[in-house]
Amino acid sequence: MLEDKNQERTSLEKLGEFGLIEHLTQNFELKQPSSLIGVGDDAAVMDYGGKKTIVSTDMLVEGVHFDLAYMPLKHLGYKSVMVNLSDIYAMNAMATQVTVSLAISNRFPLEALEEFYEGVALACKLYNVDLVGGDTTSSTRGMIVSVTAIGAADENEIVYRKGSKPNDLLVVTGDLGGAYLGLQVLEREKEVFKVNPNSQPDLEPYSYIVERQLKPEARKDIVELLKKLEVKPTSMIDISDGLSSEVIHLCKQSDIGCNVFEDKIPLDPTVISASEEFKMDSTMIALSGGEDYELLFTIDQSDFPKIKGNPNLTVIGHMTEKNEGVHLITRAETKIPITAQGWNSFNE
Amino acid sequence: MLEDKNQERTSLEKLGEFGLIEHLTQNFELKQPSSLIGVGDDAAVMDYGGKKTIVSTDMLVEGVHFDLAYMPLKHLGYKSVMVNLSDIYAMNAMATQVTVSLAISNRFPLEALEEFYEGVALACKLYNVDLVGGDTTSSTRGMIVSVTAIGAADENEIVYRKGSKPNDLLVVTGDLGGAYLGLQVLEREKEVFKVNPNSQPDLEPYSYIVERQLKPEARKDIVELLKKLEVKPTSMIDISDGLSSEVIHLCKQSDIGCNVFEDKIPLDPTVISASEEFKMDSTMIALSGGEDYELLFTIDQSDFPKIKGNPNLTVIGHMTEKNEGVHLITRAETKIPITAQGWNSFNE
Repeated sequence: MLEDKNQERTSLEKLGEFGLIEHLTQNFELKQPSSLIGVGDDAAVMDYGGKKTIVSTDMLVEGVHFDLAYMPLKHLGYKSVMVNLSDIYAMNAMATQVTVSLAISNRFPLEALEEFYEGVALACKLYNVDLVGGDTTSSTRGMIVSVTAIGAADENEIVYRKGSKPNDLLVVTGDLGGAYLGLQVLEREKEVFKVNPNSQPDLEPYSYIVERQLKPEARKDIVELLKKLEVKPTSMIDISDGLSSEVIHLCKQSDIGCNVFEDKIPLDPTVISASEEFKMDSTMIALSGGEDYELLFTIDQSDFPKIKGNPNLTVIGHMTEKNEGVHLITRAETKIPITAQGWNSFNE
Repeated sequence: MLEDKNQERTSLEKLGEFGLIEHLTQNFELKQPSSLIGVGDDAAVMDYGGKKTIVSTDMLVEGVHFDLAYMPLKHLGYKSVMVNLSDIYAMNAMATQVTVSLAISNRFPLEALEEFYEGVALACKLYNVDLVGGDTTSSTRGMIVSVTAIGAADENEIVYRKGSKPNDLLVVTGDLGGAYLGLQVLEREKEVFKVNPNSQPDLEPYSYIVERQLKPEARKDIVELLKKLEVKPTSMIDISDGLSSEVIHLCKQSDIGCNVFEDKIPLDPTVISASEEFKMDSTMIALSGGEDYELLFTIDQSDFPKIKGNPNLTVIGHMTEKNEGVHLITRAETKIPITAQGWNSFNE
């Protein structure tokens, strides 16, 4: 019962989220023959004799990952599922089931939970996954959501973070930076609302980026598209923390380098105008913003004709030898090293 | 952003945990061919073409499920895994993997998390399961643990909550009530410690029940024992909320009744003496205490010779026709209806 006040203390901020998981799980070995891939990719891969089972889990915490001042509970339910499905799709697998656990304080009435589950139900319906389990409990304060997504894939379909090689093309889906800027708009309106509770915000000009924040879509369609195009990426990851940290993950795990071209990064016009309004650099936002839940993958150059001209897919760079490092080639053709500036939840 | 103050509000206390999960998931249908069993048993069952995949998930919240004043973090890591493995064993399946997610405030140093993961590692080692994933994030306050356990079993091995029939014998493993009384001892010592921080509690006489609370063991050994004895239970559940609520679950899902004999309920001598000390009825504690993580199952009468005399297994009653209801037959041979008095986390 006595706490040892003299024990060595290392603050969590120092390590950051990536360092932390790596540090904490470094001594865990996989011993079960059914465990193919453990910690370190978008999802774990297990083999029980049939299709491979893919499992991913994420936790969302009120006040850290979402703010109920502007996040409707139905959207939260929807987004909680999306965040997890995205990890399954990033393995080039199809999501089939989710479990949803919820800790909530008694300040929430039943109707609030029903709203949350409406969002879960909509996500399940649209993405064709089943809710198969979960846990509901009280919390002393605030709301915490933990979702586990389960998927299945044939072994030869699965795409890992490793597997890319020099000269592969780096491809991103959709466009980047919207979710982060949507959050800035919502934070700004929250401050206005605090000062004047009668103000009616006009979010119409920002509807695209606000929706990117409140109701992101996981890219199931891309997994289907790639299958149709007969393209199997050499590596893949979903963009949850920002382009820069995901590029670094791919490079690190594939043991290679990368050049990303600034002028190729796909940005929606709303992202460009909102960046200007907030006096932020749109490239920096795409690199570090996070929560876009697009897919980032690499393909062999010979597959380029198959994806060329597809409006969902943009080639933004190419992989290099490891000793060339990881760089952004700016519009001014200068070469800037890319560092992980992804959202670090312990620095908030 | 405006909250509708006039909306109908139903408090969560009214529904309780069981009612809540049922209510919230009632409109979810299983549509994936791979989803065999969804919400409503100890775990979900999925079929990807090989062994069936079994998945269960539980959330533990600081201040609700555990108190770090007397729960060492290593024990918490261990217990968090046990709680989930127990659900897999309750399906008569073997647990193979876990994912562990953690939300923690910055007041915890890295060394505290290392301690927690030491407990997770010990549980994984002793129960031969692999840690294959998880998430680590910050919380605004307190610590929340969410664990998902994954297992595998051949279809014909899996035992559900339903499947029992009248005249089946009701069997419980180990002994009951210890975990709840261990909690009472720890709560008492916490109060003493508040008054006099220099007091050195003598927990030695209570070591068995304190360990039942702080370091419960999931009954993997029972699944192995039953296989060795060639006994396949007709229904099974783990005792997390107390004997009474688990008996009711089995009866409800098997659509039958049950008689439980008070004088057969296995109690450790420490449980009997501590009950007297706390002026509590030991039968009531066994019925409602919770957190013992023993297994409760039913067997066909013809299997009785196989389990007879085994010190791990106690026959405490028998199943009846549904219209006979669910009763406790007391030592005085009176018949008392059993109601779900299991721990309701929204009433705390």
